[in-house]
Amino acid sequence: MIDEAISKKLDVKSLLSSSKTIRLADLGCAVGPNTFDAMQNIIDLIKLKCQTHLPTSPMPEFQVFFNDQPANDFNTLFKSIPPKREYFAAGVPGSFYERLFPDSSLHVVYSSYALHWLSKVPEGLEDKNSPAWNKGRIHHASAAEEVRRAYAVQWANDLSNFLNARAREIVPGGIIVIVTHSIPDGMEYSELANGMMYNCMASILLDIAKRGLISEEQVDAFNLPTYAAPPGEFVSVVENNEYFNIVTMGESNPSPWLTDDVHVDMNEFVNHIRAAMEGMFNKHFAREIVNEMFERLEVKLSEISVEMESAYKDKIQAFYVLQRNDSG
Amino acid sequence: MIDEAISKKLDVKSLLSSSKTIRLADLGCAVGPNTFDAMQNIIDLIKLKCQTHLPTSPMPEFQVFFNDQPANDFNTLFKSIPPKREYFAAGVPGSFYERLFPDSSLHVVYSSYALHWLSKVPEGLEDKNSPAWNKGRIHHASAAEEVRRAYAVQWANDLSNFLNARAREIVPGGIIVIVTHSIPDGMEYSELANGMMYNCMASILLDIAKRGLISEEQVDAFNLPTYAAPPGEFVSVVENNEYFNIVTMGESNPSPWLTDDVHVDMNEFVNHIRAAMEGMFNKHFAREIVNEMFERLEVKLSEISVEMESAYKDKIQAFYVLQRNDSG
Repeated sequence: MIDEAISKKLDVKSLLSSSKTIRLADLGCAVGPNTFDAMQNIIDLIKLKCQTHLPTSPMPEFQVFFNDQPANDFNTLFKSIPPKREYFAAGVPGSFYERLFPDSSLHVVYSSYALHWLSKVPEGLEDKNSPAWNKGRIHHASAAEEVRRAYAVQWANDLSNFLNARAREIVPGGIIVIVTHSIPDGMEYSELANGMMYNCMASILLDIAKRGLISEEQVDAFNLPTYAAPPGEFVSVVENNEYFNIVTMGESNPSPWLTDDVHVDMNEFVNHIRAAMEGMFNKHFAREIVNEMFERLEVKLSEISVEMESAYKDKIQAFYVLQRNDSG
Repeated sequence: MIDEAISKKLDVKSLLSSSKTIRLADLGCAVGPNTFDAMQNIIDLIKLKCQTHLPTSPMPEFQVFFNDQPANDFNTLFKSIPPKREYFAAGVPGSFYERLFPDSSLHVVYSSYALHWLSKVPEGLEDKNSPAWNKGRIHHASAAEEVRRAYAVQWANDLSNFLNARAREIVPGGIIVIVTHSIPDGMEYSELANGMMYNCMASILLDIAKRGLISEEQVDAFNLPTYAAPPGEFVSVVENNEYFNIVTMGESNPSPWLTDDVHVDMNEFVNHIRAAMEGMFNKHFAREIVNEMFERLEVKLSEISVEMESAYKDKIQAFYVLQRNDSG
């Protein structure tokens, strides 16, 4: 559906009237290798469109910008870019919630599993006097509605900044493809496997605090800056932003191994989660605390593996294809 | 003189007629920090020109591409880019002897102390049957004329590839600034301090070979891929290339500590050389051999410090400002 939307909506004639180069960006690309396939796939779609609609014109050149935080391992990324590639490659360090590229310089922007990362911990979560004080938790799963709302507000604010920055950078008719964590509208995050896991993490940390190895205040002061927005909230932010139209959107289940036939390998699952999240815990807790937390997490999740496996698992991934309109 | 040439020759009105963004590239930037000053300096010059010649137009945006080999430490580079900067930054991994950027996408290219690195070891140096066989040496200093010529041919070929790639990438009127190792026309490389040093390195390696720790063939098979071209050879390559005109050029002495008043601190000198060259030796020789070589180098150079200091020391740096013409 994403491919179809790009093929249908990208007007190569119009894009190539003002530029001989098609510029793509992957925002939040990490170190690859998925980004290389994704970028090549988009290039193939555009080339096909050019062959059809501009059969007598020379094929445009392609420039691909790989973006992530300055702390990302660009050395590894750069060493793994396919040596035989059909595009000029560049790395762009920086937060995609701010400007990264010159005015009207991009044609297609892609961002996969990156926009659930908030630019900062939502306000109020660490403030005893706030209704959003998130005592004894590290996420909004199972928390008071005020906590979830603080997450939602921060996420909406971040996405709005993302769209405003891209509105400057993407030419009219240009496209943004977003693939991201999602949750069905109206569903509680604690019904998802990840929500159960965050609650397990918090309970292990509180248990460690009881033994006096860390303080309870340390647990209270730690909150994961990640939010899986339901489609309704996503659409609402885009509609409030005047620069982009939603071309298509959809939901799906990203985990082929989370099916009825295949059981979760909890060791593999925890290793996967650990690789992605350990860094954040290490910034806040001593290494031995983090080690213990992840070791006990595997045990604790194995105990609730039936609930984990029967947790809601459809439609926890969403995709959106947006098109830059002519305004502003 | 470089600043003056840029100020005088860069026609901002013409450049900005086809692009709202000025794109700069530093080719062979290493990890900084010199590159940040150099790029900011060029941006300041262009802004000044815009204020003078386009007082009513909005200031253009700037995008700076930092290029070096994929093995360069881009992680360090990206972490040290000034956070408050007036440009969008990107890193570009790859050899500048090949294409790195889309057609007509750059306005100013800068390259400092990078174009003396050859793309490969010149042909014939490691071939017993070639007149350019460089037995017992690691560089053309003090070698047969055929060896120097093999270096010169490889360098000219590389520079020609550099200019042809840039000719595609730089817009008409765009500028290349090159600062590089040089040697006065007609002078022997063995008369330069670096030439003396390469000869010392070779003699230490041969001495280690005599003790049987490495073979003589290993020394014969190692040649430094670096060539300091005299201005005459540089001009000749540019003139044979139809795409660039020489706006200005000059020679200078880059080493403030190699003056009559200041003596060389040989320890500092060898440490500096070692930082730049050790990697190349390590690819060819065991680490303990390289350690011994550099340790003995300091002793050996101290013995000839009078000759080193009195070695020809002016004009071993050259700069060239080239402008892309309208042809092709």
